[in-house]
Amino acid sequence: MAKRKIAVIGVGKIAQDQHLPVINASDDFELAATVSTRGVGHGGVPVFKTPGALYAAMPEIGLVSICTPPGVRHAYVREALAAGKDVMMEKPPTTTISELDDLIAEAAKRGRVLFQTWHSQYNAAVDRTKSILAEEGVKSARIDWRESVRKWHPGQDWVWEPGGFGVCDPGINAFSIFTKVMPFPVFVESAALTFPANKQTPVDVDIRFKSAEAHKPDLSCGFNWLEESGEIWTIRFETNKGNEIKLEHGGRKLSINGELVLEHGDREYAGIYERFASLLNAHQSDVDAAPLRLMSDVFLMGARANGPEFHW
Amino acid sequence: MAKRKIAVIGVGKIAQDQHLPVINASDDFELAATVSTRGVGHGGVPVFKTPGALYAAMPEIGLVSICTPPGVRHAYVREALAAGKDVMMEKPPTTTISELDDLIAEAAKRGRVLFQTWHSQYNAAVDRTKSILAEEGVKSARIDWRESVRKWHPGQDWVWEPGGFGVCDPGINAFSIFTKVMPFPVFVESAALTFPANKQTPVDVDIRFKSAEAHKPDLSCGFNWLEESGEIWTIRFETNKGNEIKLEHGGRKLSINGELVLEHGDREYAGIYERFASLLNAHQSDVDAAPLRLMSDVFLMGARANGPEFHW
Repeated sequence: MAKRKIAVIGVGKIAQDQHLPVINASDDFELAATVSTRGVGHGGVPVFKTPGALYAAMPEIGLVSICTPPGVRHAYVREALAAGKDVMMEKPPTTTISELDDLIAEAAKRGRVLFQTWHSQYNAAVDRTKSILAEEGVKSARIDWRESVRKWHPGQDWVWEPGGFGVCDPGINAFSIFTKVMPFPVFVESAALTFPANKQTPVDVDIRFKSAEAHKPDLSCGFNWLEESGEIWTIRFETNKGNEIKLEHGGRKLSINGELVLEHGDREYAGIYERFASLLNAHQSDVDAAPLRLMSDVFLMGARANGPEFHW
Repeated sequence: MAKRKIAVIGVGKIAQDQHLPVINASDDFELAATVSTRGVGHGGVPVFKTPGALYAAMPEIGLVSICTPPGVRHAYVREALAAGKDVMMEKPPTTTISELDDLIAEAAKRGRVLFQTWHSQYNAAVDRTKSILAEEGVKSARIDWRESVRKWHPGQDWVWEPGGFGVCDPGINAFSIFTKVMPFPVFVESAALTFPANKQTPVDVDIRFKSAEAHKPDLSCGFNWLEESGEIWTIRFETNKGNEIKLEHGGRKLSINGELVLEHGDREYAGIYERFASLLNAHQSDVDAAPLRLMSDVFLMGARANGPEFHW
């Protein structure tokens, strides 16, 4: 089967680090154009300043992958759906829940495929963890998600602006694993958000979750964006049968009771594009709103405190 | 038809001001018990300390109206649904979106009626406004919702605690009218939240909305909780045909181009209980998540600033 022509909209760090190399190596997709307000191209394909210019000039491109910051995503996805395109969205999908629900409704109304990517949902270690927890239940869970904003978002001021989510931008990756593997629904019981005194999004977040489970599982979470020792992307579970399940490296490494069970490389974006191809074949959307909803609840419920100023 | 026996759970200000007098005057309902941690009863009916004690002692009561602050509502509604009760919830329904979505799913799973009350949705002036806007479109909308927290929530410290919503607690009444009457979906574009320096919820909020409408309607909103001159609960619209629609008194008074068209008294809670009765007759739930979702978006997207301390 011929490769599907796709355009990448928004050619920033995540597109250059992940989307473009993965599309280049893909059996399913072929990069046909980019859209970049700064005129950034890739591999000699046509570059457009706006999505509208792309849609007018190359109507044969039926797919777009939208890699912009989340603030403009709602308008871009609406425009793409209206132009008859099937759409993949980077995470976090939108800056508000109302926008995400609107896009789900809009894609359904127009009969287009909408795929919300969540990092790490397509890892074998995550799937295995889900099966174990479904079988054994959860007595406790602890998320530790710590990384350096200077390493992962160098100079990207938008992460500190309202709607940029701050440390919840990487933290939502933890939520996308957590909400996928947990065998019962979880809710924010309380949260403590620390903001740099000169910024509008949090740099550190502590969360306690609750559930409707009678055995009152102990569920907590810590995000920090000033960790310079390396990435700590770990979720630990104790099951009701007493086994310790540890997911490390953002869902790529699984240990049970200290024994390594499964470890695989970073195929995250390759898996995401494979999933998009199979959704397109089935003409089916896949938008999981749970991670954004839970993160939104952290902001709604959270206690705020100011910490030291942040400077790059 | 015999009146339906109902229990009121949480006998604070809103129950005493509205629910209990309206139930006493109702043709559909009969107060059969109250649940109050402080032992507050009404009209000689049995008083229980916990919902569980009520359900054990008086299983013949099939309905509960939950009038507690929102923090405990999710657990109380879950417990009521599990006990086989049909449930009415005060507003705001829950402290998080995930909890509200869970209750919708839980009520459906258990085949119970769940009714989320929203103030002012049952006014003739609101219905008329909705028809006019559907016919004429919206060029601009402005919400002004100003009242005194000292008058409406005297000494209620929970309104200032995380999850208490602050001025968004009355503000959500404006949203429940706004999302009902608007002929297209609206989204939070930006919001500025001012917090008393010693409190965890906002006392003043300014919002700009956006939409996907090509004519870019001008949509804005201001909430303030330190208005001592009286209540200002007004939404003004300019239609695409140039007419000025003004809804005052929280949706009870409608003027068009300065001419009074409709004004009615406060039948809000009488209307809410009539609606509950008709939902019970039809065995149908009614939970509109749009107002809470939009308010949650204000917290997620909003810029924060500290203002003067608040003291009662």
